[in-house]
Amino acid sequence: MDVFKESLKLHETHQGKLEIKAKVPVTSKEDLSLAYSPGVAAPCEEIVKNPDAIYQYTSKGNMVAVITDGSAVLGLGNIGPAAALPVMEGKSILLKEFANVDSFPLCLDTQDVEEIIRTCKLLAPSLGGINLEDISAPRCVEIERRLIEELDIPVFHDDQHGTAIVVAAGLMNACKLTSRALENLKVVVSGTGAAGSSIIKMLHQLGITQIIAYDLNGIVHKSKVDNYNEVEKSILTLTNPSNFIGDDTLASALVGADVFIGVSAAGLVTKEMVETMDPDPFIFAMANPTPEIMPEEALAGGAFIVGTGRSDYPNQINNVLAFPGIFRGALDVRARKINEEMKLAAAIAIASCIPEESLRSDYIIPSPFDPDVAKKVAEAVKISARETKVARI
Amino acid sequence: MDVFKESLKLHETHQGKLEIKAKVPVTSKEDLSLAYSPGVAAPCEEIVKNPDAIYQYTSKGNMVAVITDGSAVLGLGNIGPAAALPVMEGKSILLKEFANVDSFPLCLDTQDVEEIIRTCKLLAPSLGGINLEDISAPRCVEIERRLIEELDIPVFHDDQHGTAIVVAAGLMNACKLTSRALENLKVVVSGTGAAGSSIIKMLHQLGITQIIAYDLNGIVHKSKVDNYNEVEKSILTLTNPSNFIGDDTLASALVGADVFIGVSAAGLVTKEMVETMDPDPFIFAMANPTPEIMPEEALAGGAFIVGTGRSDYPNQINNVLAFPGIFRGALDVRARKINEEMKLAAAIAIASCIPEESLRSDYIIPSPFDPDVAKKVAEAVKISARETKVARI
Repeated sequence: MDVFKESLKLHETHQGKLEIKAKVPVTSKEDLSLAYSPGVAAPCEEIVKNPDAIYQYTSKGNMVAVITDGSAVLGLGNIGPAAALPVMEGKSILLKEFANVDSFPLCLDTQDVEEIIRTCKLLAPSLGGINLEDISAPRCVEIERRLIEELDIPVFHDDQHGTAIVVAAGLMNACKLTSRALENLKVVVSGTGAAGSSIIKMLHQLGITQIIAYDLNGIVHKSKVDNYNEVEKSILTLTNPSNFIGDDTLASALVGADVFIGVSAAGLVTKEMVETMDPDPFIFAMANPTPEIMPEEALAGGAFIVGTGRSDYPNQINNVLAFPGIFRGALDVRARKINEEMKLAAAIAIASCIPEESLRSDYIIPSPFDPDVAKKVAEAVKISARETKVARI
Repeated sequence: MDVFKESLKLHETHQGKLEIKAKVPVTSKEDLSLAYSPGVAAPCEEIVKNPDAIYQYTSKGNMVAVITDGSAVLGLGNIGPAAALPVMEGKSILLKEFANVDSFPLCLDTQDVEEIIRTCKLLAPSLGGINLEDISAPRCVEIERRLIEELDIPVFHDDQHGTAIVVAAGLMNACKLTSRALENLKVVVSGTGAAGSSIIKMLHQLGITQIIAYDLNGIVHKSKVDNYNEVEKSILTLTNPSNFIGDDTLASALVGADVFIGVSAAGLVTKEMVETMDPDPFIFAMANPTPEIMPEEALAGGAFIVGTGRSDYPNQINNVLAFPGIFRGALDVRARKINEEMKLAAAIAIASCIPEESLRSDYIIPSPFDPDVAKKVAEAVKISARETKVARI
């Protein structure tokens, strides 16, 4: 099957992937008088009296906007808002199908950080949450940070945290399977964009301190700080405690490492480089569609566990494991935000979907179609939101 | 039945009135690879190559945003964006149920004209059209005018034109029934806000020149021009050709008139005032929920035809007769705008839904549940869009 040809056909047949549905009937005069004028004045007036009643009488509590500026779409790059729409519609239907979250795509005709922030804030009254999508780094980090600060509904940039959460779940299970301690792992992260920077933060949260970050400018190192943007500076504070620079190549960083995590580009890692890592390393090579190293090569180089973003290999790091359940949980308790604790809770929940006795080197990540995943993630996120006092109910 | 209590119960039971639905399945790995990654890259790339392909591969072509700032909601006034949400959701489900147009509400947290315009423009890439809703006059006129000028998707402020179109349809049928000529009618319009100003423009389009407009400042007259905003100035140019001022009351304006059209406030017109009009006048008293004059009173004063906004009296002027079919028609031909000709075509189509031989004084407006109305309106709007060269297909 040619997946691209088939996809075009699917999109054309249905003219897109989502539609709106009425939850109440409108087939009689009486229906109309309740759902619309004059009866609809009653819920309006209740909301005037008590702003929180909007959750009781409207769809707001379950309604998320999937917002992009089209600046970093899949592997396609800065293709702009219009061409990004098929991806956003895809995201919307995944939210619905995996966690019964309603959402619609909004593709913004601006790539100005302040304008994107302002627009999201103007849209907030009728939204239960905002899923930022495919916005390029480092702008996405600033946009998300500001919106989390300035809005009281959950805002989540999936490209940053989705992958990070699933990688964290994978690392947890990899350590369980091999009786290693997370905090002793020496990790190399290739890529310091949206996903890379969030992965590094999450590794730190897991107690991992021996992290080396690598990107187009080589190893992230304090000698280069003058050229760093805010995001790269924050990465610097979380990585490279021993100020390693080697010969400033990925190969030199990998020598003696336990884990490679790639959110960068096809083919950066060779079998020979894997051979220089510590025994039985974990390789998460998530460049799309072609990983940093193909699983066969990585295994030939001695890797014990290999994960990729692909559905045709074991251990698929698919962020559909994370974001639907996270929004479900956050919306269910009307969380004011999705904080670090909730993301960590989501990672633990994903990991827990595979019983310890079932873990195998080619099965440390649950299937995206395991119906328990979103439920367990939602439940864990709800509990965490309440514990960290960001839940409103 | 207490319609307000029942409406609250309905809204609470369903937690709002609309949800999103996937048009394609996402239950297997293969589904996911077509609807989302990696297959979704294909429609994205097609749109990059040919921007018009967005209509072929996405929901844009059938997706409208219902946008408000909550400044003029029903009869409730400036209740703000959040409290306006139940009305916007109502509008969305009417668009879906009456004309299969998909839409979602966006309640903007600003009442600044420029900011509303800018936001709508930023949102345009993924929208097939914009339905402006419940924005106060005269701001709504400026916002709509600018967006029609600056965007290439249909933008329609229903509060302005919806009522005007249905009133025009009613007038056409009233004239057919009584063998009068539209252009000879002497008309008094009470109310010069969103609906009033659009009604006056439409009357003019119908060839009616003897129009007197009345509002809180009395009769619209050139002696008051220094106090008028842009909208009132434009009304002045279309009304009062004989510079009538009388004693500057509605009563004096009505003497000898053929038609009263009210989009103003309860109780402004008395039986005695109707008695001073020319014989067998038409009264469209559309203040909500209580009309300018109750139908019983108007008939007692000699009115031949009475229409109101209410579903419990004959001849209900309900804009659900207009906007769903108008959007359906405009979207079907990818109209760049909804122009005056298309609105007039919609009015003629609505009038035509009652065969001439079936017209009666209490049946000049079709029922909102007549399934032919939206179809006929859509068809007429499509033809008109093509004739006036705003259709793109």
